[in-house]
Amino acid sequence: MRDTVDLNCDMGEDFGPWELSEAPAEALMEIITSANVATGFHAGDPNKMDRVVSLAKSHGVGLGAHPAYRDLQGFGRRYMDMATDELVNDIVYQVGAIREFGRRHGVSLQHVKPHGALYMEAARNEELSVHMVETLLKTGGDTILFCMGMSKTFAVAKRLGLPVVREFYADRGYADDGSIVFTRKVGRMDPDQIAQKCLRACKEGTVETDTGNTVEIEFESICFHSDTPGAVELGATIRKTLTENGIRIAPAATVLERAG
Amino acid sequence: MRDTVDLNCDMGEDFGPWELSEAPAEALMEIITSANVATGFHAGDPNKMDRVVSLAKSHGVGLGAHPAYRDLQGFGRRYMDMATDELVNDIVYQVGAIREFGRRHGVSLQHVKPHGALYMEAARNEELSVHMVETLLKTGGDTILFCMGMSKTFAVAKRLGLPVVREFYADRGYADDGSIVFTRKVGRMDPDQIAQKCLRACKEGTVETDTGNTVEIEFESICFHSDTPGAVELGATIRKTLTENGIRIAPAATVLERAG
Amino acid sequence: MRDTVDLNCDMGEDFGPWELSEAPAEALMEIITSANVATGFHAGDPNKMDRVVSLAKSHGVGLGAHPAYRDLQGFGRRYMDMATDELVNDIVYQVGAIREFGRRHGVSLQHVKPHGALYMEAARNEELSVHMVETLLKTGGDTILFCMGMSKTFAVAKRLGLPVVREFYADRGYADDGSIVFTRKVGRMDPDQIAQKCLRACKEGTVETDTGNTVEIEFESICFHSDTPGAVELGATIRKTLTENGIRIAPAATVLERAG
Amino acid sequence: MRDTVDLNCDMGEDFGPWELSEAPAEALMEIITSANVATGFHAGDPNKMDRVVSLAKSHGVGLGAHPAYRDLQGFGRRYMDMATDELVNDIVYQVGAIREFGRRHGVSLQHVKPHGALYMEAARNEELSVHMVETLLKTGGDTILFCMGMSKTFAVAKRLGLPVVREFYADRGYADDGSIVFTRKVGRMDPDQIAQKCLRACKEGTVETDTGNTVEIEFESICFHSDTPGAVELGATIRKTLTENGIRIAPAATVLERAG
Repeated sequence: MRDTVDLNCDMGEDFGPWELSEAPAEALMEIITSANVATGFHAGDPNKMDRVVSLAKSHGVGLGAHPAYRDLQGFGRRYMDMATDELVNDIVYQVGAIREFGRRHGVSLQHVKPHGALYMEAARNEELSVHMVETLLKTGGDTILFCMGMSKTFAVAKRLGLPVVREFYADRGYADDGSIVFTRKVGRMDPDQIAQKCLRACKEGTVETDTGNTVEIEFESICFHSDTPGAVELGATIRKTLTENGIRIAPAATVLERAG
Repeated sequence: MRDTVDLNCDMGEDFGPWELSEAPAEALMEIITSANVATGFHAGDPNKMDRVVSLAKSHGVGLGAHPAYRDLQGFGRRYMDMATDELVNDIVYQVGAIREFGRRHGVSLQHVKPHGALYMEAARNEELSVHMVETLLKTGGDTILFCMGMSKTFAVAKRLGLPVVREFYADRGYADDGSIVFTRKVGRMDPDQIAQKCLRACKEGTVETDTGNTVEIEFESICFHSDTPGAVELGATIRKTLTENGIRIAPAATVLERAG
Repeated sequence: MRDTVDLNCDMGEDFGPWELSEAPAEALMEIITSANVATGFHAGDPNKMDRVVSLAKSHGVGLGAHPAYRDLQGFGRRYMDMATDELVNDIVYQVGAIREFGRRHGVSLQHVKPHGALYMEAARNEELSVHMVETLLKTGGDTILFCMGMSKTFAVAKRLGLPVVREFYADRGYADDGSIVFTRKVGRMDPDQIAQKCLRACKEGTVETDTGNTVEIEFESICFHSDTPGAVELGATIRKTLTENGIRIAPAATVLERAG
Repeated sequence: MRDTVDLNCDMGEDFGPWELSEAPAEALMEIITSANVATGFHAGDPNKMDRVVSLAKSHGVGLGAHPAYRDLQGFGRRYMDMATDELVNDIVYQVGAIREFGRRHGVSLQHVKPHGALYMEAARNEELSVHMVETLLKTGGDTILFCMGMSKTFAVAKRLGLPVVREFYADRGYADDGSIVFTRKVGRMDPDQIAQKCLRACKEGTVETDTGNTVEIEFESICFHSDTPGAVELGATIRKTLTENGIRIAPAATVLERAG
């Protein structure tokens, strides 16, 4: 059973005049312990990044880069057939950008979580995972990489010695093989039901799949999405439920240290 | 009289399949001591940045960020009416990106030189200069800012205590008030004539203006452009002429230390 | 007194995953008679354009291009110092894009309305207005140009013989010199009050300025913004009030023909 | 045996300050009969488009759209996993843009040739080919679609009744199954050898493959690339050789009419 877990959320996924989520960033920052901040390729711009990093600092939330394919219109959800080294160069660029806003606000980079199609591609592409992990070992060896438990990314990070955190997806379904069922748009969910799902995952290490079966699951962080309708209430309910049941919510770096 | 001077050049101003200059980056790196690396907003992409930073490392050339307005089509040469804080956020983003490639290759950021219309706007806009200098003091207080001697940028950097380097433009003309006559495209120049212009500027602290007058000039770095026709020969001739006349060519950070 | 007036609204100002306005496009199309469709430079993408043009067709709404500076992050609200011929090339590109979606759906282009900073720049820049009008005369001589009454654009279009429509801004204030007070974000307004303002403008040809004075105003079209809070109710109230007072709402082309 | 053939070349593949090819557009326009003009997504910008369309007009060269994936950095050479209808919307947008420059200069659109990865994806993806052909039938039923003979695109266009032209690639190799061996960068080639290859293809309908075998080939247009080193001499030699051997070079529309 987990006695400490991280709670992460994608943040800063606005662009220019547009807002993705109705959930106020401040309200989300009260709830989460790790923020995956969009770095301008799929969403986010320097103004949003500056603001979100400032909020992460003032709320003591772990700062994460959320790099993606260069695809603003497609929100980084479309696979692009790129050379691995070029893709990793794109990641380096984006990680550097968010790290610099961290420098400005006096907060160091805690983690990197690839976004959307890049997250999925890294999960199945060992060469990409290796190249990405080796680069992170070089640019900041204590940076934590976020990924799915069932992924090449996890296996590679473990093997090469990069700190790694596996995610449990609160607002997404699970298939019988333990993989996550990604959906672009989800409807409003019952916060209590989601919170119970998270609690069970923490206490029993299991999750009920979309077909009603039970599978085992390992993770160090729980993820929910800011654009899931009612995100603030959802996140707050997860936090409250876990806390009331003796599970501490703490940034990924802390969870790792306790684990290590 | 100057006995040491920096020699800088804009580098990495290619994008995707396109090359701006016929001058090979390796050949230029043999000549210069400071490289202003395009950071993706007016030119450059993560692949070019990675390569140029790698070359700067192997040649011991001072690494500089060359941030610009977000205007790829206009090559950052078009003024944009932006809020000062938003413009500085764009600079932070770009500086962070190049700094990260430096981390990867084990070379720290030596300087920042705004590009094109941003360089000119900062020169005349005190509010922008102040905001930019204060940000650089926060994100890396020993980062050198490159600018014209006749600029708000220089005055502000001096006043606020940021290391600053003034530039002498080898391949551009001078007006009678000591200001630089910027031209988008220049023709092929006589390398010896340009080298003599630089030598005189170093030894006598003067330059002949476009109208034949003489004005005084102060600087710590000489700039030439990689897209000036015959750039490699031009730079090599400047370097050879200065060296043969007892003037040492060294990275901006070194020049500053000797000055300080 | 006007007995017919056009009612126009900016449409399709979403991009990729982001929506600018909560007002459903279908609801707005029921109300307006001319749609200014974003063409991808400040907002809009080919998917939004296709959908909005299809709606314009099915609702019999006049189709307009809404070209802008190439500035997605700044939503086309930032002036860019560009060569006039290059700026007009950008307009040609955007007009062609929306016209093609019109070809696909069997609706011809009724009008062109420059967006944001481009609208304002054309208003004060005679050279730009001339170049823009001459180009529209060449690419489609019956295309109507939308502009402010107090603008170079209007004067030039009149002089050179391009059909032109002046706008009255329902949800913006007026200064004592008859110019419009543009504000980036407006709050919720009283629909009845706005509708009365429009009715008076139609019947008496006057508007009350922000300082309480009365100025004369000439126009053929009333504009309101889809991102003004409560836009659907606002537009519906304007339409209802005008119609009940004997003023017909009809597309700009119709208004022009009746005027002509 | 062919007695008339079209000669096409990709044109306008510059962007902002960058030029892709050393071959002057005017010189190429003297040689070719159909120009595939980049439309801004992989290369080209409104200024380049205006200039190339103007040249096509003055040289009587058939005007073609050369739409691509939205991928400037990757030059449209990287496959993107997009929804078919969204991809076709991107094509509509680009075709409209170039058609409008045609309107300005009084030249109508002759053909559409998808670029790079889009050309290859359409070749193997029947659903995309169908959607693209149906759209072209709607927006301009006499627009010719350029494609490879061995492609879904050709089969679909034939079946649905859209005018279609197959290409022979002068400066690319052939595999034993008749497919083209695409290479990103080719070296300098012997113009006479290439011209003889084209002559044989016209006269005998065959081509020698990279392994030395002979395969049959059908086509109505010969393509060479402006960024192949020595492109002007290459194109001129092809033209001269074919003409001297009694094969007329004429725009695709003419070739089609003679065929029809």
